[in-house]
Amino acid sequence: MKVLVVMGSRSDSHIAKKVTPVLDEFGIEYDVEVASAHRNPKKVEELAKKDYDVFIAIAGLSAALPGVIAAHTVKPVIGVPVSAKLGGLDALLSIAQLPPGIPVAAVGIDNGKNAALLAIEILALQNEELMKRLEEYRERMRA
Amino acid sequence: MKVLVVMGSRSDSHIAKKVTPVLDEFGIEYDVEVASAHRNPKKVEELAKKDYDVFIAIAGLSAALPGVIAAHTVKPVIGVPVSAKLGGLDALLSIAQLPPGIPVAAVGIDNGKNAALLAIEILALQNEELMKRLEEYRERMRA
Amino acid sequence: MKVLVVMGSRSDSHIAKKVTPVLDEFGIEYDVEVASAHRNPKKVEELAKKDYDVFIAIAGLSAALPGVIAAHTVKPVIGVPVSAKLGGLDALLSIAQLPPGIPVAAVGIDNGKNAALLAIEILALQNEELMKRLEEYRERMRA
Amino acid sequence: MKVLVVMGSRSDSHIAKKVTPVLDEFGIEYDVEVASAHRNPKKVEELAKKDYDVFIAIAGLSAALPGVIAAHTVKPVIGVPVSAKLGGLDALLSIAQLPPGIPVAAVGIDNGKNAALLAIEILALQNEELMKRLEEYRERMRA
Amino acid sequence: MKVLVVMGSRSDSHIAKKVTPVLDEFGIEYDVEVASAHRNPKKVEELAKKDYDVFIAIAGLSAALPGVIAAHTVKPVIGVPVSAKLGGLDALLSIAQLPPGIPVAAVGIDNGKNAALLAIEILALQNEELMKRLEEYRERMRA
Amino acid sequence: MKVLVVMGSRSDSHIAKKVTPVLDEFGIEYDVEVASAHRNPKKVEELAKKDYDVFIAIAGLSAALPGVIAAHTVKPVIGVPVSAKLGGLDALLSIAQLPPGIPVAAVGIDNGKNAALLAIEILALQNEELMKRLEEYRERMRA
Amino acid sequence: MKVLVVMGSRSDSHIAKKVTPVLDEFGIEYDVEVASAHRNPKKVEELAKKDYDVFIAIAGLSAALPGVIAAHTVKPVIGVPVSAKLGGLDALLSIAQLPPGIPVAAVGIDNGKNAALLAIEILALQNEELMKRLEEYRERMRA
Amino acid sequence: MKVLVVMGSRSDSHIAKKVTPVLDEFGIEYDVEVASAHRNPKKVEELAKKDYDVFIAIAGLSAALPGVIAAHTVKPVIGVPVSAKLGGLDALLSIAQLPPGIPVAAVGIDNGKNAALLAIEILALQNEELMKRLEEYRERMRA
Repeated sequence: MKVLVVMGSRSDSHIAKKVTPVLDEFGIEYDVEVASAHRNPKKVEELAKKDYDVFIAIAGLSAALPGVIAAHTVKPVIGVPVSAKLGGLDALLSIAQLPPGIPVAAVGIDNGKNAALLAIEILALQNEELMKRLEEYRERMRA
Repeated sequence: MKVLVVMGSRSDSHIAKKVTPVLDEFGIEYDVEVASAHRNPKKVEELAKKDYDVFIAIAGLSAALPGVIAAHTVKPVIGVPVSAKLGGLDALLSIAQLPPGIPVAAVGIDNGKNAALLAIEILALQNEELMKRLEEYRERMRA
Repeated sequence: MKVLVVMGSRSDSHIAKKVTPVLDEFGIEYDVEVASAHRNPKKVEELAKKDYDVFIAIAGLSAALPGVIAAHTVKPVIGVPVSAKLGGLDALLSIAQLPPGIPVAAVGIDNGKNAALLAIEILALQNEELMKRLEEYRERMRA
Repeated sequence: MKVLVVMGSRSDSHIAKKVTPVLDEFGIEYDVEVASAHRNPKKVEELAKKDYDVFIAIAGLSAALPGVIAAHTVKPVIGVPVSAKLGGLDALLSIAQLPPGIPVAAVGIDNGKNAALLAIEILALQNEELMKRLEEYRERMRA
Repeated sequence: MKVLVVMGSRSDSHIAKKVTPVLDEFGIEYDVEVASAHRNPKKVEELAKKDYDVFIAIAGLSAALPGVIAAHTVKPVIGVPVSAKLGGLDALLSIAQLPPGIPVAAVGIDNGKNAALLAIEILALQNEELMKRLEEYRERMRA
Repeated sequence: MKVLVVMGSRSDSHIAKKVTPVLDEFGIEYDVEVASAHRNPKKVEELAKKDYDVFIAIAGLSAALPGVIAAHTVKPVIGVPVSAKLGGLDALLSIAQLPPGIPVAAVGIDNGKNAALLAIEILALQNEELMKRLEEYRERMRA
Repeated sequence: MKVLVVMGSRSDSHIAKKVTPVLDEFGIEYDVEVASAHRNPKKVEELAKKDYDVFIAIAGLSAALPGVIAAHTVKPVIGVPVSAKLGGLDALLSIAQLPPGIPVAAVGIDNGKNAALLAIEILALQNEELMKRLEEYRERMRA
Repeated sequence: MKVLVVMGSRSDSHIAKKVTPVLDEFGIEYDVEVASAHRNPKKVEELAKKDYDVFIAIAGLSAALPGVIAAHTVKPVIGVPVSAKLGGLDALLSIAQLPPGIPVAAVGIDNGKNAALLAIEILALQNEELMKRLEEYRERMRA
């Protein structure tokens, strides 16, 4: 069980830093990469074809990264829109409005934490221990 | 492995009808329900606590349904915004902009097909046969 | 006659601080709570079922709180959208675009003062003294 | 206990027709008027000063009507934005974004039904029978 | 020939300060007032009925001021939307989207200078000297 | 006293047809032209330099026509945004957001009637008879 | 000198049909292809690497096609956003907001004609005859 | 081979400074001018008629500059929208939504770098050395 956290640009690393502590807290293995769908499509394609269970793709502006990864894998891809211009509306629409056939799971603008939690929820379907820890995590949020 | 397809109103059934044929095609078991987060929160809560693996929640306007289901489960919840007013922008923002802590996977406006495919991708992580069929499905899309 | 001021997150307290001084000025009794519709739906439901006359619910992003309270009460619910992302447009749409059947009274983005005044106007319908003080308050605004 | 249903233009009467059946169903007395805040401000002012308990003001475009009524009364004013242009976003912002000091309760675009229900919730605070009927109405919605 | 510069709130005075120096430069007489269409409609009505040639009305949020003035006069009314929330889009729509019958001349968001110049262009139609000075002003802009 | 009604494209003539009947009703002389700021800038420039008192420029999309006319005259220019795409938001912003120095008076989307009335208000400043007829016109609207 | 006209989906062919007649009129050679950046990225990559002089990429929703082509070529890429949802705002932002480093030339929503003309302007830089014909074409538009 | 970089106002020079270093890096000759389509249309027209190969026009608000240049030339015109108000959405729509017949190539908001690269891609079609250097530049971006 391993997650890839990939951002489109080094300037998105403040959002990646909201993702990885949550993965750490749940003991999820992950790699972190910087790879732009536009500037380095070959690297993105190679990463997408690797044997990760879930992909978390972080991108701003015309945020093609999550969709391009999804084009190369049938594993779940989670997209995190980053607010670089227009409050992030451009990135949210670019990530959410994928054409029928290639799904991406969009979370909220700059919401790296929810991307991590969604990845963990997906992985927990095959791991009872993880599911139990998610429930405890929720319990603590309520307190 | 079972999916719940729940819509906030009977008027959303044209979108549910984009979800279920894809689930059928992949042989995924599912139930279909109508339950409004606002008009019948108790029913929504009860459905959310049932033992489904993935939830697909379809809603328009102030589309609270996916978030309210997510509030009651740690299973993956996929939200489908429906274009009832403002081209569906209201529903997309209501579904995507969840607060940190409670994740929902937003797909595109009226994009029931991608909700189904995302659910299947999530389920396929624990089912090699399903994963293979997803890859074949992609192959056929390319042709 | 008692009002509940509830915010979805401690980070909304700068808006709650626009509500309570107005309630104080008019001598309205109130309680203040923090309860997230997504992170702690049980607490929200319990609060909604308490015997308050008016609810003022403050929330940003996908601001489900006012609608979820409204789902559990037939008392008037006032929603205050908070500008956390997209200038608060996401919260305004989430609060205003409730489905037919479950009303919420939306006030302007970050406009805690108007939420308080609307609550007082509602309460003043059964309290002539309060009505008179509202008219004097208006008179002073004109000066 | 009497409500004024006022629309800014005869062309808004399809929305007024969503309001009055609900008021009828609950046995609420009401008057219906057409009065434009821009074309006939004197009539609007006179109506606003009459002894109604709640005002429901329906308007599209630059929907000044609810705010202008609110400027002349300390009774609760409910505004219903009508989708004439831009999907009703212009009217929603005109109604919701009132300045601090003069509150208006905005409901959703074209959502005359919720305006009626909100008015009834407000009136029910001083009428136990009405409150009971609202609860029964909710009960029926759940069924 | 006299202009009224009226703002909805003292907080709009930074925009009024873009208007008056231009009027001064062209030797146009003017008064400056603060009067809110919502908080002090009577004062707005009285000002609108005074014998000014052109009205410049400055307002943010649900910027009803220009339309309310226009409702009480058949003299030209220029509206200046102020960016208080949503970048001023709310105010621009509130000012521009007046209903057929009551015209207002909207200028750009925060663009007090153009409001002044438009007023002068209108006044210059009956004053050749002013027209000549406008042409010289344009000439200098080109340099 | 003469008005030029100019539209950017023959496809805008449905809006011009809202302008001219009002001018006719008030006995205002006018010419009607089709001239695109982008396809025929020379013609636009020539028209702008003619001796009209007021210009009414009707355009959709990137509605440059009103601003380009304003660039060539110091007479008042009224811009009417046409809803061709995006509900007319593109045209409204293109017309309203002129840079400081070159004013244009924007009216509402597709609101040819208000453009005509604003032109008449401007002309009426130098014509008492016209002013009186405007007041009578308003009186009739109130009835 | 050859142009590739590529659309993301057969449903975009009504826009392609605005492109090709203009290319025909100017005697420009071209190929037409359907290839989705998301459903068939390999085909898109292969097309992008072919020896075309200019690419015209037509796509709606999260319109990644122009950017993905641009990622694989240093030839000019023109993107045409198609109005499928939200009036085409999603596609316009997806095409225009490319990250620094990978340029795409966006034309207007559904504006296939301008894509063709822009391609011809680019090609005409190395073909005097074509340049002359463009000038004649403009001349005819003015008439 | 020469490019004109023209901005609508001196306040746009921070964006021009993203354009010229890229042109320098590729050894492209260029001139830089400040000329407003609204304040100095004659200068804009004269510049547009000069013998440049590509025009890069930078403008905010109602960004007419690129379209007005395009109206006077059949050379490629690249428009760079500047974020002055509304996050630059006004400028993007003004530049992108040109009417059929007069093309402009819009790049992203404030994205001067892509304007330069697009110009170079266009020029490289007739210059193999330049094409090779573009490919090397891309190669370096990937590293």
